[in-house]
Amino acid sequence: MSELKNDRFLRALLKEPVDTTPVWIMRQAGRYLPEYRATRAKAGSFMDLCENPELACEVTLQPLERFDLDAAILFSDILTIPDAMGLGLYFAEGEGPRFKTSLTSIAQVQALGVPDPEDKLRYVMDAVRTIRKELDGRVPLIGFSGSPWTLATYMVEGGSSKDFGKVKGMLYSDPATLDLLLSKLAESVTLYLNAQIAAGAQAVMIFDTWGGSLTPEAYQQFSLDYMAQIVSGLQREADGRKVPVVLFTKGGGQWLEPMAETGCDGLGLDWTVNIADARKRVGDKVALQGNMDPCVLYSDAEMIRVQVKQVIEGYGVGSGHVFNLGHGIHQHIDPDNVKVLVDAVHEFGAK
Amino acid sequence: MSELKNDRFLRALLKEPVDTTPVWIMRQAGRYLPEYRATRAKAGSFMDLCENPELACEVTLQPLERFDLDAAILFSDILTIPDAMGLGLYFAEGEGPRFKTSLTSIAQVQALGVPDPEDKLRYVMDAVRTIRKELDGRVPLIGFSGSPWTLATYMVEGGSSKDFGKVKGMLYSDPATLDLLLSKLAESVTLYLNAQIAAGAQAVMIFDTWGGSLTPEAYQQFSLDYMAQIVSGLQREADGRKVPVVLFTKGGGQWLEPMAETGCDGLGLDWTVNIADARKRVGDKVALQGNMDPCVLYSDAEMIRVQVKQVIEGYGVGSGHVFNLGHGIHQHIDPDNVKVLVDAVHEFGAK
Repeated sequence: MSELKNDRFLRALLKEPVDTTPVWIMRQAGRYLPEYRATRAKAGSFMDLCENPELACEVTLQPLERFDLDAAILFSDILTIPDAMGLGLYFAEGEGPRFKTSLTSIAQVQALGVPDPEDKLRYVMDAVRTIRKELDGRVPLIGFSGSPWTLATYMVEGGSSKDFGKVKGMLYSDPATLDLLLSKLAESVTLYLNAQIAAGAQAVMIFDTWGGSLTPEAYQQFSLDYMAQIVSGLQREADGRKVPVVLFTKGGGQWLEPMAETGCDGLGLDWTVNIADARKRVGDKVALQGNMDPCVLYSDAEMIRVQVKQVIEGYGVGSGHVFNLGHGIHQHIDPDNVKVLVDAVHEFGAK
Repeated sequence: MSELKNDRFLRALLKEPVDTTPVWIMRQAGRYLPEYRATRAKAGSFMDLCENPELACEVTLQPLERFDLDAAILFSDILTIPDAMGLGLYFAEGEGPRFKTSLTSIAQVQALGVPDPEDKLRYVMDAVRTIRKELDGRVPLIGFSGSPWTLATYMVEGGSSKDFGKVKGMLYSDPATLDLLLSKLAESVTLYLNAQIAAGAQAVMIFDTWGGSLTPEAYQQFSLDYMAQIVSGLQREADGRKVPVVLFTKGGGQWLEPMAETGCDGLGLDWTVNIADARKRVGDKVALQGNMDPCVLYSDAEMIRVQVKQVIEGYGVGSGHVFNLGHGIHQHIDPDNVKVLVDAVHEFGAK
């Protein structure tokens, strides 16, 4: 493997000294980029793009050509595991992800297997290997997975949901079935992320997009405990370097303290948290990743620079901050505004 | 006006002694009740129902016939004010509320008038008068409004939104236009709630459904400051009794302290907050209303009783708690489970 030329991202997550604040952007390879839309059109469906390692590599690298980003993130979907379990993932235009089969009974959950990542998810591992090779040490590659709770919401609801009535109904009326599902998912995610690390991922992130829909007690029991189990099962070293793990629960700003106890290296923050307060709350336990409101990118260079500076000064002096948005970039953002953001992070982060 | 026979709800909000914990349920007059669906079918559209004072009164009283509730809440919509401003509210089947006109320019905002509640919103005041008369002192009547920020999201987006790109884009790129809109809305809401109080509402609640989509700084500036302005402009006494004011920001669990500083009497809590922690944070400043997860009602009597007890014991001894769900009741809930909840609140609250 080629030597890593820019390791700011890894160093910041491990709270080692950095020359400036590293930055990457959730969904940085996405629809706001015309070159992404061109590759996507060439590929066919969204899943066709995810399942083609060369094209997945192509879109992963596109934002790095435009912007001075400090990390690449595997282009894939959070629902690859349930798909590999046989639920039949598809994307209905304008409706988001759907499954052909949704889970309603313990018999269905009992019948689910734990997917071998080098079998049914081999396309993901091939993408990791291809991207890592093409990156050639330019910046580190981030692997990722959805959290067990987040995957379970889609599997029980059959797709996206506004109020999570089915999966949370199961939580209160049949917690044993939900726990069995979450156990299988935690095992699957552990294998999946370890396979990504073996294939070349230099950091991993767990996206708990829907943990914020739970009560504090249910979050601990049905989301965080399973994420902690995954963190403790991960291969935390590769190529002689530590592989940092980041947990991100959208809407989880009230639960940073227990999240920091899981043994992860960093916490992703959405924009509803003040990063200065967050740092006070978690102390030196973990690094922080985030957390500018993605909607700032609808404004102009001047406002973007003001808001970037505010987040960087909010975090304050010392390593341990990876700049990011508080959630994925929206599709109607002008790419030129992303350049302003990335350059502003490096400028203000160096002070 | 007839004397109030059950004033537990008002007393709890003012932290005066009560015999047991009072309870009402957000959206208690709603689609989970077959008798509501029958009246709704008779009325025609949802707005036809809202605009007919006799039918609005009928559905407001329906849940009181079934359950031992301690308050009635005016049956209406949160978007009556923008509709009265001329935006043309309608409900597209399965898509939620939409406006015929959405706001994109300062000229449009400048042209908006502040509606006279006894003119274009007279149907709401007539409903309040009719309900108050029909209630005949049985329980207090709650009036309500959407918050300025929440109304603005619908007015700028043209309806519901997943990521609030337009209205938050305006916040960062053209805050002067947004502030002008919010000022007009704050003035309109103040007049609207004062008119409801004059018409017979014995408590009022401000629903800030989308305040949780903001950063802490933007929440303070673009949502909370305008709600505080409304609170300070309300007529807080009627019929020789204090009229309590409740603020509810869904997803606002991180901001209870500044919310408690607005001069309101109570805070609504969603289910992502532990009510014991919330009480510690706000101290004796305000009463608390909430906060059981609405999804608990998908389970059975035993689990509902366990969860009700947990919320009541979480709040602890002393007055100042109004039991409610953390958000509106879902449409597929069995009404029998609501009876279990209401009776359990009175049973456990009496200890």
